[in-house]
Amino acid sequence: MTYSSIDNKRIKDIKKLHQKKYRDEMNMFLVEGEHLVKEAYISGYLDSIILLEGTTFSLSKNDIYVTDKVMRYLSALDNYQPVMGICHKKEKKDLQNRLLLLDDIQDPGNLGTIIRSAVAFGFDSIILGLKTTDLYSSKVIRATQGLLFHINIFSMDLKELIREIKPNYYVIGTRVDGGEEITKFKNHDKIALVMGNEGQGVSSDILAMCDAYGYIPMREQCESLNVGVAASIMMYELSR
Amino acid sequence: MTYSSIDNKRIKDIKKLHQKKYRDEMNMFLVEGEHLVKEAYISGYLDSIILLEGTTFSLSKNDIYVTDKVMRYLSALDNYQPVMGICHKKEKKDLQNRLLLLDDIQDPGNLGTIIRSAVAFGFDSIILGLKTTDLYSSKVIRATQGLLFHINIFSMDLKELIREIKPNYYVIGTRVDGGEEITKFKNHDKIALVMGNEGQGVSSDILAMCDAYGYIPMREQCESLNVGVAASIMMYELSR
Repeated sequence: MTYSSIDNKRIKDIKKLHQKKYRDEMNMFLVEGEHLVKEAYISGYLDSIILLEGTTFSLSKNDIYVTDKVMRYLSALDNYQPVMGICHKKEKKDLQNRLLLLDDIQDPGNLGTIIRSAVAFGFDSIILGLKTTDLYSSKVIRATQGLLFHINIFSMDLKELIREIKPNYYVIGTRVDGGEEITKFKNHDKIALVMGNEGQGVSSDILAMCDAYGYIPMREQCESLNVGVAASIMMYELSR
Repeated sequence: MTYSSIDNKRIKDIKKLHQKKYRDEMNMFLVEGEHLVKEAYISGYLDSIILLEGTTFSLSKNDIYVTDKVMRYLSALDNYQPVMGICHKKEKKDLQNRLLLLDDIQDPGNLGTIIRSAVAFGFDSIILGLKTTDLYSSKVIRATQGLLFHINIFSMDLKELIREIKPNYYVIGTRVDGGEEITKFKNHDKIALVMGNEGQGVSSDILAMCDAYGYIPMREQCESLNVGVAASIMMYELSR
């Protein structure tokens, strides 16, 4: 069968996945476009595929066909794709040697970029502070280019996490002044790097729990870098 | 006097500066908020200040007072500020030792981030390919955090530019494969680094004009980095 009405209960429920409240409730999220659907499939997170009627796709998983009108209704994009995927949210996995702690990043583009760079530079886990922008929003997922499926990510109170990992990990906070060049820390076995949010940086109570502080040397006309850039350069240096 | 009508010719002309066509015609652009207006003033690019009636500001330059309604009309922001500036566009200056050539970057946030990083890592000039997103749009200017006033930036056909600078500069193209680690090039005196656009990378005819190709080593699950991140890491390495 093909769903042709946007008033259908099943279609309305899928559409609700564009809202964080329902993603949290159903523990599911949406991806759009061939690349992301394939990445979700390969990684085992895909629950079902939504296809535009009359199109074919190289994969099959609980396929749901919809009309053009319904596809447009379900999509968050101006140029909607003929394929979407409904995915299960990621589950927490064990921490390895390189952790990135994000203290409430607000911009979806920044979060997506950071996830992409974390995979590029061999970080194994990203832990999101509880006020971080939602990982499963359409903008974040697109900015990750599918790489969210290649890394362990979960949300947790960062102070609680730091207390848990502290005996085993060297916890590096970031601030513009009073730290040491980030290259200095790359020989530590187990590292937890903490990046702060766009406006305030790392919060003072978390900074107080860190073992050391890292910075990126730069010209003084520039007070700070974009947080996506700063996180990426630090992970790059710690991976070398 | 205070402008209170959005039908006033002067107000309508200022509003038009949100469109590239009029920015090009009048050779002016707008900035919003205290920080950007101050940066424009210090750098000598400020032509006049627009102030919300009843407010004061620490600087003065051909001040124009407007009502709340007019300020809201002139602003591109949801939360408009009580101060805006009308600025002269930047003029081309002489090239020094570290040039960044941007082959048609499309995303305003990426362009702003790259400008910010270029100042941070001591690049002196940014040359924008002719199809690059407009430097003077509200989004780009905000993403630069005012640092566009601290660096030489102009638009030009990049092939023409490379032909001009080629005898004196080592021109480094960027591509995902077939290059050498970017750190290898940092000892060249005069460098021109070319970054490509989000979808296609550096165009093939420009790549063919380069002296060498640089890349950033990364894990193979990740095919590429966000262009703002890639440009920043390369400039960081070339500045060390």
